[in-house]
Amino acid sequence: MSNLAAIPVKEIKKVVSPFPLDQWYVAGFSSELTDKPLGRTYLNQKVVLFRTGEGSVAALEDRCCHKSLPLSCGSVESGDLRCGYHGLKFNGEGQCIEIPGQERIPSKAKVRAYHVKERNHIIWIWMPKAEGGAPACEPPEYAHHDNPMYKWGSGCYHYDTPWQLIHDNLLDLSHLGYVHLKTIGGDARLHMNAPTTVTAEGNSVKVIRHMVGSNPPPTYKAAWIFGDTCDRWQEIEFVPSHLSIWTGAMEPGTGSIDDPNRGGFHLRGFHGITPESETSCHYFWSMCSNKHPQMPETIEKVLQQIEFTFNEDQGVIHDQWRNMQEFGERATWLDIHCDAGANRARRIIDQLVAQNAA
Amino acid sequence: MSNLAAIPVKEIKKVVSPFPLDQWYVAGFSSELTDKPLGRTYLNQKVVLFRTGEGSVAALEDRCCHKSLPLSCGSVESGDLRCGYHGLKFNGEGQCIEIPGQERIPSKAKVRAYHVKERNHIIWIWMPKAEGGAPACEPPEYAHHDNPMYKWGSGCYHYDTPWQLIHDNLLDLSHLGYVHLKTIGGDARLHMNAPTTVTAEGNSVKVIRHMVGSNPPPTYKAAWIFGDTCDRWQEIEFVPSHLSIWTGAMEPGTGSIDDPNRGGFHLRGFHGITPESETSCHYFWSMCSNKHPQMPETIEKVLQQIEFTFNEDQGVIHDQWRNMQEFGERATWLDIHCDAGANRARRIIDQLVAQNAA
Amino acid sequence: MSNLAAIPVKEIKKVVSPFPLDQWYVAGFSSELTDKPLGRTYLNQKVVLFRTGEGSVAALEDRCCHKSLPLSCGSVESGDLRCGYHGLKFNGEGQCIEIPGQERIPSKAKVRAYHVKERNHIIWIWMPKAEGGAPACEPPEYAHHDNPMYKWGSGCYHYDTPWQLIHDNLLDLSHLGYVHLKTIGGDARLHMNAPTTVTAEGNSVKVIRHMVGSNPPPTYKAAWIFGDTCDRWQEIEFVPSHLSIWTGAMEPGTGSIDDPNRGGFHLRGFHGITPESETSCHYFWSMCSNKHPQMPETIEKVLQQIEFTFNEDQGVIHDQWRNMQEFGERATWLDIHCDAGANRARRIIDQLVAQNAA
Repeated sequence: MSNLAAIPVKEIKKVVSPFPLDQWYVAGFSSELTDKPLGRTYLNQKVVLFRTGEGSVAALEDRCCHKSLPLSCGSVESGDLRCGYHGLKFNGEGQCIEIPGQERIPSKAKVRAYHVKERNHIIWIWMPKAEGGAPACEPPEYAHHDNPMYKWGSGCYHYDTPWQLIHDNLLDLSHLGYVHLKTIGGDARLHMNAPTTVTAEGNSVKVIRHMVGSNPPPTYKAAWIFGDTCDRWQEIEFVPSHLSIWTGAMEPGTGSIDDPNRGGFHLRGFHGITPESETSCHYFWSMCSNKHPQMPETIEKVLQQIEFTFNEDQGVIHDQWRNMQEFGERATWLDIHCDAGANRARRIIDQLVAQNAA
Repeated sequence: MSNLAAIPVKEIKKVVSPFPLDQWYVAGFSSELTDKPLGRTYLNQKVVLFRTGEGSVAALEDRCCHKSLPLSCGSVESGDLRCGYHGLKFNGEGQCIEIPGQERIPSKAKVRAYHVKERNHIIWIWMPKAEGGAPACEPPEYAHHDNPMYKWGSGCYHYDTPWQLIHDNLLDLSHLGYVHLKTIGGDARLHMNAPTTVTAEGNSVKVIRHMVGSNPPPTYKAAWIFGDTCDRWQEIEFVPSHLSIWTGAMEPGTGSIDDPNRGGFHLRGFHGITPESETSCHYFWSMCSNKHPQMPETIEKVLQQIEFTFNEDQGVIHDQWRNMQEFGERATWLDIHCDAGANRARRIIDQLVAQNAA
Repeated sequence: MSNLAAIPVKEIKKVVSPFPLDQWYVAGFSSELTDKPLGRTYLNQKVVLFRTGEGSVAALEDRCCHKSLPLSCGSVESGDLRCGYHGLKFNGEGQCIEIPGQERIPSKAKVRAYHVKERNHIIWIWMPKAEGGAPACEPPEYAHHDNPMYKWGSGCYHYDTPWQLIHDNLLDLSHLGYVHLKTIGGDARLHMNAPTTVTAEGNSVKVIRHMVGSNPPPTYKAAWIFGDTCDRWQEIEFVPSHLSIWTGAMEPGTGSIDDPNRGGFHLRGFHGITPESETSCHYFWSMCSNKHPQMPETIEKVLQQIEFTFNEDQGVIHDQWRNMQEFGERATWLDIHCDAGANRARRIIDQLVAQNAA
């Protein structure tokens, strides 16, 4: 289409942000890692994940120190990882523990290891500022995955766009009325004019929008029982590694929309956005929902609708990024009222990157 | 295949020509633009076309000033264009006339607009030297589209090659005997040895070749009734924005081949070549033909054959350009007799580009 | 996946080797060249091969000197090559011998010619240090193709990897026990611990490994009749243009594994690796096999199994190279015992390149 598509990524790097280090990032979901190694790139670092003998997860540099084959092309043998080319075997700390046909194992026969931890069915990886740096804290909690009130499903998208475009998208749900009319949209004007509060504390941003007397959009009607109107809420919390988005709606008059224990139809979205490179990222999502007493298939309906919705977002963000590349320096942005949350999140990332550099 | 395929386009730019500005270029055919916006890149400028309330055509920079989504991903609302991400609305002059949920519209909430005009079912766009520059003349006339003697069809190719390779191809029809033997070719030697006149006047070049006593090629026999021989003509006129090519043939003895009102089988080709970038272009073509009294489907046959023929050209020109890239500076050209028209057209483009630079 | 995929090849060139010149390289197999021209790139030089009137093979620069169309898009006419765009005709020495419609043929109407020779059903091309340089020797002999004891088949892979990664693969067959367990593998430990001798003489390297009392792998059982054990050999000879690999096995006790005229099941592999560019190559292979008296289809079985096996190699080497690109300077290699032959071959190539540069 345009010349800029051919600009080498190195030149693009200058205009997009690098990433906060000394942070936990989502590496994947527990269910993704079975008896085979799994290769993924996080923050420009190629990593192989595998389950060790004890059932815990190990993460190594995804490159055999012999001939550079990805270790993710190999196989897991009793909790160790064997290369698929000439059979070198590595343990969960990255130490080579066997060179077939050779007795002596040189001390440099090892690969870099990363700290990983599973919590609430999510695999977290610590991306240190200095190689080998240990985590400064526990990975984030996400208790909804273990709450018996909810059923949930999950998925993973690969985006060929910078990660922060997804933050922007998720921190401003006013796009629902334009992009997602077939599923979770609803009346565009009502979204755009609903009172919205944006608050920030430390490295977290909250965006809350309540739409009392709204019309239930198609997804809400497909997965729950609603009349003509509902009281709808969107409560978004951003931290650098992920967003937790609580949306839902109640029959009018069945409770207070400010009550943290309110009833009604709940959608609890987890959105782990992990940079792969400056211009690509992984988007790990899960969606929890409670079951309506008379709707046997609430969660199945929700997941069908969410998949459709997230595909729409991917289309928009891909088109947006391609256009940004094609317009280059001309692609300036005009701020409008609904950008407050996203802009605040961008400042947090900028500050963390500046702290890393300091 | 070769390394040069990976050379970034920026470096190739140095060795290929930029484009004449302050010129009309073909943006598309009227029939392409209905109720949806249409995004295309002309001369490295991304443009969205849409029909305004009055039915005329507007052309804007294809980028919302809010978050850079292409406006061509949006929708037309009563002659205005609404962005598909957060709903900003723009009129045909590029002025933002609505920001949903926000009363004040900042003065910088606008996008660049282009001058466009429809004439003879062709949409023309004026590509100014300076942003906002107004047309210095009317767009070219192409009256054959409105001549009741003719029926016609049209199409659009996207070429991943510099635009002037198509001028070269169309200004020297001696390739017909080598490339298009299955359709409009004919005897290669006869083409190559036919008397050809090349004349130039201002920014136009004419190449005329008459082949009296030629054999009708397959397309001519499929769409018209011919005996063993025919008197065949090729009359090509180049101007910077497009070529008009009148080819055809008469039964020998039924008229003078120099008569501008001569009868016989007419093929009136319109070839609008509009650069997309230094290394890609749009090729908008139409073909008019008159109907043989005893042949009900002349135009349908013509269009089938022409599509086959133009696909052959695209294959050749693509192979040629790939080879030029792979050989780089070694890909020098040897001039032969039939290159006179194409070389003259290249000098006209060079002069126009030099005038723009001056 | 990673940024490095987008690094232009020019920058990669600095870290990978150029090629020995004044050498014969495999251009293809005789059976590939029939009545049509064949375009291929050798050592960054685009070449077209075709059969001249005498049945011998000519090789020219694959670019018409008129408008740069690949001559391989043209056609062979009585042993000459006619361009497919405007019909210029070239003889086997690269001289233009016809410009249709033009009497005078300018002296510069010619393209570069290469020395080629067919021997043992292989087409060899001499890649000279200086343009036009004549061969200093005959192309290598490969008599097994003409030995009535053998039947054989051949094929050609295109690799998007540097050529020497294939040398590395073929000079160390210890990977068979990890990569090729479904065909020619066998017990990994036995391969890795078998006594191996590496010898070098001039520009040739020999790697010999004998595995007495081995288990016949699946391919051996599919194509020959074996009991539970066999005496297996692997004899590899590398020269810069190709490798000859003699593998096979005998029933234990039916002869000496050192006997050059030994019986049993023979696999004679020819592996011509010709660089296309610094990061891509052609891999021309053939496989000869003798027929077991009670097995009617030995060669057919062998070729099925070999194709499966070579596809596995291509997968591994592709993954290896992609990882090398992605890790860049971090992709250092650790030498282990089985790398001796491959490292010696790399030194020979380095020396030849240094001699060319001197």
